[in-house]
Order: sequence, then structure tokens, then C-alpha cells
Amino acid sequence: MNQMRVSTAHEAIMANAIRALTMDAVQAANSGHPGMPMGMADVAAVLFNRFMAIDPSAPRWADRDRFVLSAGHGSMLIYAINHMLGYADMGMDQIRAFRQMGSRTAGHPEYGHADGIEVTTGPLGQGIATAVGMALAERMQNARFGGDLVDHFTYVIAGDGCLMEGISQEAADLAGHWGLGRLIVLWDDNKITIDGSTTLSTSTDQKARFAASGWQVLSIDGHNTVEIADAIEAAREDPRPSLIACRTIIGFGAPNKQGTSATHGAPLGEAEIAAARKALGWTSPPFEIPEEAATAWRAVAKRGHAVRLAWEERLAASPRAGAFTGALAAPDAARLGDAISEYKARLSAEAPRLATRKASEMALEVVNATLPNMIGGSADLTGSNLTRTKGMTPVSRDSYGGDYIHYGIREHGMAAAMNGVALHGGFVAYGGTFLVFTDYCRPAIRLSALMGVPVTYVMTHDSIGLGEDGPTHQPVEHLASLRAMPNLNLFRPCDAVETAEAWALAATSAGTPSVLALSRQGLPTLRTTHSSENRVARGAYLLREADGTRDVTLIATGSEVEIAMKAADLLAAGGIRAAVVSAPCFELFAAQDAGYRAAVLGTAPRVGVEAAVEQGWDKLLGDNSAFVGMQGFGASAPIAALYQHFGITAEAVAAAARNLI
Amino acid sequence: MNQMRVSTAHEAIMANAIRALTMDAVQAANSGHPGMPMGMADVAAVLFNRFMAIDPSAPRWADRDRFVLSAGHGSMLIYAINHMLGYADMGMDQIRAFRQMGSRTAGHPEYGHADGIEVTTGPLGQGIATAVGMALAERMQNARFGGDLVDHFTYVIAGDGCLMEGISQEAADLAGHWGLGRLIVLWDDNKITIDGSTTLSTSTDQKARFAASGWQVLSIDGHNTVEIADAIEAAREDPRPSLIACRTIIGFGAPNKQGTSATHGAPLGEAEIAAARKALGWTSPPFEIPEEAATAWRAVAKRGHAVRLAWEERLAASPRAGAFTGALAAPDAARLGDAISEYKARLSAEAPRLATRKASEMALEVVNATLPNMIGGSADLTGSNLTRTKGMTPVSRDSYGGDYIHYGIREHGMAAAMNGVALHGGFVAYGGTFLVFTDYCRPAIRLSALMGVPVTYVMTHDSIGLGEDGPTHQPVEHLASLRAMPNLNLFRPCDAVETAEAWALAATSAGTPSVLALSRQGLPTLRTTHSSENRVARGAYLLREADGTRDVTLIATGSEVEIAMKAADLLAAGGIRAAVVSAPCFELFAAQDAGYRAAVLGTAPRVGVEAAVEQGWDKLLGDNSAFVGMQGFGASAPIAALYQHFGITAEAVAAAARNLI
Repeated sequence: MNQMRVSTAHEAIMANAIRALTMDAVQAANSGHPGMPMGMADVAAVLFNRFMAIDPSAPRWADRDRFVLSAGHGSMLIYAINHMLGYADMGMDQIRAFRQMGSRTAGHPEYGHADGIEVTTGPLGQGIATAVGMALAERMQNARFGGDLVDHFTYVIAGDGCLMEGISQEAADLAGHWGLGRLIVLWDDNKITIDGSTTLSTSTDQKARFAASGWQVLSIDGHNTVEIADAIEAAREDPRPSLIACRTIIGFGAPNKQGTSATHGAPLGEAEIAAARKALGWTSPPFEIPEEAATAWRAVAKRGHAVRLAWEERLAASPRAGAFTGALAAPDAARLGDAISEYKARLSAEAPRLATRKASEMALEVVNATLPNMIGGSADLTGSNLTRTKGMTPVSRDSYGGDYIHYGIREHGMAAAMNGVALHGGFVAYGGTFLVFTDYCRPAIRLSALMGVPVTYVMTHDSIGLGEDGPTHQPVEHLASLRAMPNLNLFRPCDAVETAEAWALAATSAGTPSVLALSRQGLPTLRTTHSSENRVARGAYLLREADGTRDVTLIATGSEVEIAMKAADLLAAGGIRAAVVSAPCFELFAAQDAGYRAAVLGTAPRVGVEAAVEQGWDKLLGDNSAFVGMQGFGASAPIAALYQHFGITAEAVAAAARNLI
Repeated sequence: MNQMRVSTAHEAIMANAIRALTMDAVQAANSGHPGMPMGMADVAAVLFNRFMAIDPSAPRWADRDRFVLSAGHGSMLIYAINHMLGYADMGMDQIRAFRQMGSRTAGHPEYGHADGIEVTTGPLGQGIATAVGMALAERMQNARFGGDLVDHFTYVIAGDGCLMEGISQEAADLAGHWGLGRLIVLWDDNKITIDGSTTLSTSTDQKARFAASGWQVLSIDGHNTVEIADAIEAAREDPRPSLIACRTIIGFGAPNKQGTSATHGAPLGEAEIAAARKALGWTSPPFEIPEEAATAWRAVAKRGHAVRLAWEERLAASPRAGAFTGALAAPDAARLGDAISEYKARLSAEAPRLATRKASEMALEVVNATLPNMIGGSADLTGSNLTRTKGMTPVSRDSYGGDYIHYGIREHGMAAAMNGVALHGGFVAYGGTFLVFTDYCRPAIRLSALMGVPVTYVMTHDSIGLGEDGPTHQPVEHLASLRAMPNLNLFRPCDAVETAEAWALAATSAGTPSVLALSRQGLPTLRTTHSSENRVARGAYLLREADGTRDVTLIATGSEVEIAMKAADLLAAGGIRAAVVSAPCFELFAAQDAGYRAAVLGTAPRVGVEAAVEQGWDKLLGDNSAFVGMQGFGASAPIAALYQHFGITAEAVAAAARNLI
């Protein structure tokens, strides 16, 4: 246990130091959110002073306690704390540069901008849902490596907004179901939202709600250090996840504005800051921390440092040290590449006809057998997404050693938990649902992309090709909407070989999340000549060269590559020389050099084919081009009727090509 | 009260008729979901037989009870019922054509495909959240027109999936907060999800959760007609919304498969259907309904017809008949157009510098003063979205006569509730949040578009122009991702005049929802010459003609039109003749004739300017073009620094133009 003997005498001044830095930084920036940091300063002071085990000199120490500021607008809370703890990259210059270009102190905490920020927060509810993934990963690592090496807590500060967002329910249910007793949520129960009193928009008894999902719930005065400490202690000891309702006054210390939404999202103003300094007995000038506070905060870091050194000794002595360190390292891309190459050779020889979702399952058999720390899952579509490979066992409160997660019908909670598992370290996470339901988890996918967390979204049933389920289940705009998102690789493989190549890239990606868009319907193997090269890594490539100088280039993705190949046959029969380009990943293709791109695309007219809206195809097509795809929403019918009805056929592609020439 | 004296003798056979049609239709289609309709058949039979007041001969009767199949995969339940009730468009030919091209019986219930389908469902949780909006609209209309004219119930069948989705919590909290006592949710508590037992993924006590949000909760055996009826009766009488946990056996009646996930989403197979027929004592051939069942179902329709006729008499006698009927009619576009035109004349003369969010508030003052049934709201960003106009009063359980909704921090629940309010009829709904948070409500926006429900999303803080809040709050891909969605008009007005024109279109749209993307920052009035024409209606137009033959066309939207205008000045100073096109709505521009489009775009090289990713611009730009915008996520800094940092400046636009010429 990372228990620490602590001094508790200085918590009032530790808290006021948070308040002072918050007021000063927000005032200097002339924008920001003072209310939450000032309201929760006492809670944060007690939490860090008595409980948190972190070492600012080793910010990535694996067994550190995790702190997640789910109410991310209160970013000055964590910046102030990390400054005073002595994080090397959080000098006072950063506090002074709050919300300025190039500073590490962005308006909301941004993962990767500064040490000690465990996750990007700000979009409400994401922090608590990501923390569930972190707390689960802790238990999963604990099951694998034991309490000597893995034994930490995950603390969350969440506001009313976090708890009003629906994702909080998905997270609460998962945490309760998984029995994540080391997850402790400190709810800033200040009864204020931006529009005014919480009574404007909610009547929910939050404590009863969390209790209904198997949480311990506690209520305290968030300005009483004894109550705060007792509650956190009780939370640490209870086997259930804990919600501590901390009754606070928003903007505590600002005598004329505290307790009102006026303190939430705007500077307090010079006069009110002066009044607050007086009320708090704070005599230091702006951006100065009195020695007593500085010493007290530094003591927290010192104790954490000692805890870490003890842990390092345990690690050094542990027979599992190598395995533990290995699990934290990047997945072995070379090893996976070899295994996938060998597997591709078999595929090319056998040339099976398979849905790419089935091909994904087969590729995953290789991935999961090669990489030791893969954690799979699905939002209750395991048999459709085909995400569970042989030998995988479910993760549950009784079996944290498992490696497959039944997320339930909770796409948003799943995506956020995947982010948390990945951010925690030790695992590579993937999870599945239908492509159309990327809409349900889009805010969490965006955070994967923004943070550069390389999780993999296994999104099956990727077009009208899913058939009878109809327009509500048929993605038409989702490929475009995902391609629009920065730092996200969307793979839409055309056959089993491309699917394997996509998995080789996704499972070993360093800083970019991946979406695999996979077919429900069977598709032929088109890559029948084996090559050890991962051609998907180029984003697009010439799948079939024209017989002589190209008259036209047909470009397609996924299930429509088969259609383009058939169209090329039709055109050849008429003496028209068509090349076929498979373009499984637009993002990787855009990253190739201009010469490669020009060679692939050629100078002949182009026809794009994708059972989706055209948006996003412009960089591949250009002016002298046509597009065969969807103009609007789909319909409910068997697949063959749908492709016919919407005119996505080899004949239509050939006609479009003839039209252009 | 729409109370009815009913016969209860035939409910077993009424329920078995649902089961038989479900089995037969799913088997014939060789796809579909028999489990839910068979499990909930008894509940549905009792609900319709004893309680529902609907008239299949007048499907849009305003005071009908609403029935929402939130578990939309069980679509055969509603198709079977509507067939037997005698809806004119739901003949047995439709049941036989379940899930076939062109039938009204899509895989999931599609609003507008057939009468008696109140809302498109299938994406889980949407139905219950939309129903909250319907039930609220009922109370709001009741407050305006009295119980003689408006006095109906909203019934929902929801499954475990609906309750696991986070949106269900947002919906539950809103319904409890608003005291929607006429909302009755029948939860198909069958303890089965696709992956298997619900114990795989949830431990939540759903009844305790709903009770925590102020609901009455009841538990019954979902196959016991007396318990079903008693519970619905109790739900109708209680002032709180009610959740009735109906313990059922999924696939009830299929002797070898019932109670398992095998019945959920696949045909039962001929042998199991034969066994089920035997077990249920069902001797009729496939697609035949015995007279006893047919008569019993028809009696429901007859009673509903009588209830409606009585209501029609009350309406005819009511002094509020005209107002009531008027509220249900389409909003008066001509009248609003005149009012907006008059307002535009003032704007053009005064030429204020305003954020378009502020301009939106001013336009809304005109809209809300002109159209009597506007219902506004915000997801807790009222003071930022500027969605509440003078004289608007909050809707609450004590004040259903209000017209402004504090949705709390629940973008998803807001969007679904807006859909429900609009589907109910009698109101035109709009609601606001930040543009970046369209991600949180995207599944509900998609349903607005798919159903053609003309709600308006007021999405402010529409680019890096929001400044210091940083990347989590700065949309860069959202304009593209929304433009990718079919049947959605995205308006990004450049000044107060365009904002007014956008509102004139959005507030009176017939079958297309609108998103208004509005700036946080101040923008000049560029349309200083008044014209009564609504130029935004053309989607894009020549804002400034070149001085002579065009050398280049600068195309911009929203806040970047000002930049394009300045770039045109810079170019003019260098002797280059630039035209400036404002393109506030790509969708409306695409709908113009080719001649208009060609005239606006011209033949000169083009430069696009938008503080967002380029995707979606191709149709406006073409090969000989450049784009000045964002390449990735934003940053946290003051606005001027951000535009400079990301190179979205008049100088950069002018340079790009010079480069092209």
C-alpha cells in the first residue's frame, strides 16, 4: 500500500495558494475559470497532502496514483498544484503564461503538454469515464504482476456537468460492475452550473444514482479538512468505487461573488481579487507563493519520491521486473510484422472469400498471439464485430486477469475506457461496435486523436452492405466524418490481406488512433500474389495496372474494390485500359511523397467508388473525375438489392469511366 | 381523460398474433429480431387493448397517445400491431415484405415510412429520450390549450440496451425534473443482451436509478396481464414519470430458444417456429390472423376512433380551436420573411460589429416575436449561446407555459428532446451548445436529418476564434463532419444580415434540420446595402464583384469572410482583381442550378478560406485552387495570436491568390 505519513498542519495555506494562483493567472489571461479551483482547493490540498503518491521527478512512474481533473475547465487547479509540487516543466513562467500561445498551461489540461496531466479533459464527463479505464487497467496489471508492483489509486475531481452528461452513467455502471474499489470520485457538489442553480435543470439524487450502480457514497463539507480526509480514507478502504459528494462553495474566498455562477468562467476582477486576498488572509503579491505553502507542497513531492524509490527497489528485486517493464514498452512492431507477413502468405495462397470483419478476427488471432498485452472488447456486439479471439477470457470483478471486456451497450463509455486503459499503460486496447455508432462515441474518439492515444476502433457493418437493418444502421457519412478528424487513421481494407496489414499498423501505432471500417458481407481475396511489404502502409496503391497506357483510373476502398475490379474487366472487354487503385487509408496516402502519389493516381481521368457520400474524395479525384457512391441515407433491403438500387455496380462504374474518356 | 372501457378477454390471442406475425415475417425476410416482440407481446397487447387512444383512420390526430418503440430492432411488434389495428398503409403485403426494398416495413421503424410510427428508432436510447420531448410538449400544449384538447400519454417500450446508453440518464433526469407524469416506460427486463446475460456487463439496479431521478418504479411479470394492466393504471395515476420493469422471457413461445440471446437478432428457423406454434396453440398458417385476434385488435381501433370523434367535438366547440389548429400548422414563412427583411434594413443601415452569436440573439428576437410557438433552450450555455430572448420564461414542472428550456449539461438529451418536441407537433424547437459539442449529440442530429425534423441547432463558438479555451473546445472538423450528413443544412453566416437570413430559413424549414455555426468573436456587417432578397437561401453568392474581369475568386464562410474581404483589398492594391463569394450554406448552394453556380464561382482560380479543415470544399474549389484553413487541432491562446499562428490572415489569402495567378 502506498500509504504515507503526512503533515496536515498547512492545508489551509496549501489550499489558499491554489486559490491565489488561480485568481492571478485567470486575471492575467483575462479569461479562464476560477470558480472550481477555488471551491475545490481544500479537497485537493487534503488529497495531495495526505494521500497522493506521485513523484514529480519521475512523472511517468508506473505505480503512481492517477489524478484526473474531469472538470477540466478548472485547469488552474492542476497547474497550480503541479507548479508547487515542483514539476520541472511547470515553472511560474508557465503559470504566468496561462492560456497563452505556446505555453503548457492551455485553457483546459492537455495530455502531453505538461507532465502530471494524465488525460486531456474539458469535454465534460470524459475524465470520469477515462478514469474508469485507468482504474480497470490498474486492477488488470495488479492481477498480472501483483500488489508489490501495481497498487495505486485513481482519483477524479468531477463537477455537476460531468455527472449530468450521459457518459457518467455508462462509466458509473462499468465501475460498479467491475468493482473498481480504487476509483475515488470527488464530486464538486457546489449546486451551481453556468445557467445558475442546479435546480434549474436537475432533480436527480446523485448519491442514490451511484449507489444504484454499486458505489459507496459519502457526503462531506468540502471545506472541512477532517471530513475530507476521513472520507477519502473510507473510500480507499471500501471495496466499491466511491463517490464523495463534497459540498463546496464555488469561488470560495471571493467575498462578493462566491457561491454564484459569476465565478465560474470569468476573471474575478482586480477589486474582487483584492477583497479575496483580504478575506483569505493572503498577503503575498501575485504569482508569489509564501514559504510555508511552498514547503508544504514540496513535502508532498518528497514523500512521493520516497515511495517511488521504495517501489523501484521492489521492482529491482522482483522476478517479474522484466515482464513488467516489457508490458510498458511499445508493442514489438517488427515481430508483429513478421507474423502478419507469414499469415498473409497463407491468405494469398488460399484466397478465401471473407467478410473483412471475419478477416479482422483472423488477423487478430495473429496479433493477440504475438503481442502479449492486447485487451479486446465490444459494446455488446461480440458475435458481430468478431473481436474475441480464441483463448480470450472476460474481464470481471472476479477475474481481472482476463483480456476481453464486455462493455455492454455503451459505445461512449467503451471508447473513453479504452483511452483510460491505454493512458494507464501496460496494455494495447481495441474495442468494437457498428461503424454507424461511431457517432455515439465521437467525443471520446476525438480525445484519442487529440491526445494521440493509439487505441483501435473495430467498426464493422461499414456501409449499406449490412443490408436489411436499414438507414439507422447504415453509415453513409461516417467515413467522411472520421476522415475529417485530425490525427486519426481510418482503414477500410478491401480483403483479408489488407485487413491483416491494417491490423499490423493499428496494433503498433505510436501516436495515432485507428478506426477499422469492416464489411459485414463476404469479399474475395484480391491480393493473391504474396508480398511481405505492407502495402496498406502507403495508404493507396496500384492493385491492378492497366494493360498498356491507362485510359482511366478506378479508385475504391473496402467492399467497393471488388466492384472496381469487375468494372475494369468490363472496360477491358470494350478495349478501355483501366487501372485499379485500392485506397484503404487516405491519411497514410496523403503522407506519401508527391512522386508516389502522382504515380499511383496517374494522369488519366479517375472514377472513385465508395458506398458512402463523396465528401473527402477530392484529393484523390480532381476535376476530371466521377464518383459512384451514395447521395443520401440508405434503405432497408437485402444487400444485392441495395447496391443495385443505389447504382453502386460494376456497370455503373464502367459507364462513368466511359463517360469521362 | 382518454379513458376507455375495454374488453380484456382476448389478450392472450392478441399477443400470440404479434408473436406469429413476427416469427413469420422474420423467417420470410431471413433476417430480423424476433426476441423482443415475442417477449413483450403480452405487455403490448394489454397496453393497446386497455389504454392506447389512437385512431388508425386519423393517424395524425393531435391528441392521440404516443407509442415509442425505443427498442427499435423489435420493429415487427409495431408493424404487426399496426397491421391488425387496420392502418390503411400496413396491409399484409407490407408484413410479407418486411425488410425488402421499397416496403414500409424497414428493419427498424422509420418515421414517415408508415403511419403510426411516431419516431425513427433503432439507435438505442434515442426513443426514450425523444419520448421525453414528446411528453414535455404534451404538457406545454396542455398548459396553453387545456385538458379538453391536450390530454394524452406517451408510452415507451425500452430494452436493456436503451437503459445502458448514457442518453437514458439524461432523459431520465429531465423527465423526473420536469415531472412528466404522463410518460410511461415499459422496460423489457429480459436480462439478455446480444453478448449474453446482462450480468456480463451491468450491475445497476435500474429501478433504484430511476427512483433517484424522481420516477415511480414498478415491477411486474411481463406475461401476466393483470399485473401489466394494474401497473399501467398505477403509472397513469401517479404524478411522476413511471418505469415499469416488465420481467419477460425473450423470444417467449419458442420452446427451445426462448430466454436466450439466440432469439434476439436472427430468424428462429422453420423447426423452432413449428414448435413455437405448437407451444402457443397457434394453428393459423403463416401470415394469417384468426378472426378472434383480428376482431379484438380492430376493437382497439374502433374505441380509439370513438375517442377521437368525441375530441373532435370538443375541438369544434372550443374557443381555442383556431389557435390550437394554428399551432399545428407550418410556421408562417412569408410573415417571418417580411419581419426579417424589415430588420435587415435596420442592420444594413446601422452596420453593427457583432459576434454572429449576438446577431443570432437579435434575429431570434424577431423570430420569436413573429412566430408564436418557438421553444428555445440551451445545454447550460444560455449566456454564451445567447438563445434566450426577452420575455422568454423557463419551462418547469410548475410552469409548462414557459418557452425556454434549461436542458442542463446534456447535449444529447437536448437534441433528442428537441426531436420529440418537434415530432409531437405544436412547436418549433431550437437549442444551443458549443459547435464542438455537436459530437455529443450527433446520433440525435442524425435522426433529425433522417426523419426530416426541422429543428435548429444553435452552435456557437464555431472555430479557433473562441480563443483561449483551446483544442478541446475548438471545432476544426465539425463543419466538415456536419456537411457530410445528408439532409442537414449547415449555416455559417458572416455577419448579422446573413445570420438573420439563416434564421428566416431555419425557423420555417419544412423537412430539413439546421445547424447554425456562430462566432464567439465580433464581426463587421458586410451586407451594408439592404436587399429584401434572402441571399443565404442561394447558399453562396457574390458578396463583392471584382473591379473588372476577375483574376481570382475568394470564397469564405462565417468569420473568414471578413478576412477574404481584406485580402481582396490587399490584392486590389497590387492590381489584382478579386471577387469575394460568401458561402454560408454549401447544401443550399449545391441545390442551385448549374448556371447560377457557375456564375458565382467564375472561371478564375479560387481560394477557399475557412478556419477549419479543408474537407468538403472540393465542390467549391476545383483543381486550380488553394485553401487557407486548419491542418489539425487548434491551440489555447487569444484569438489574434491563433489566427496569426495558423496562418489564417488576409496576407496569407492574398499570397495564396497571387501564387495561383
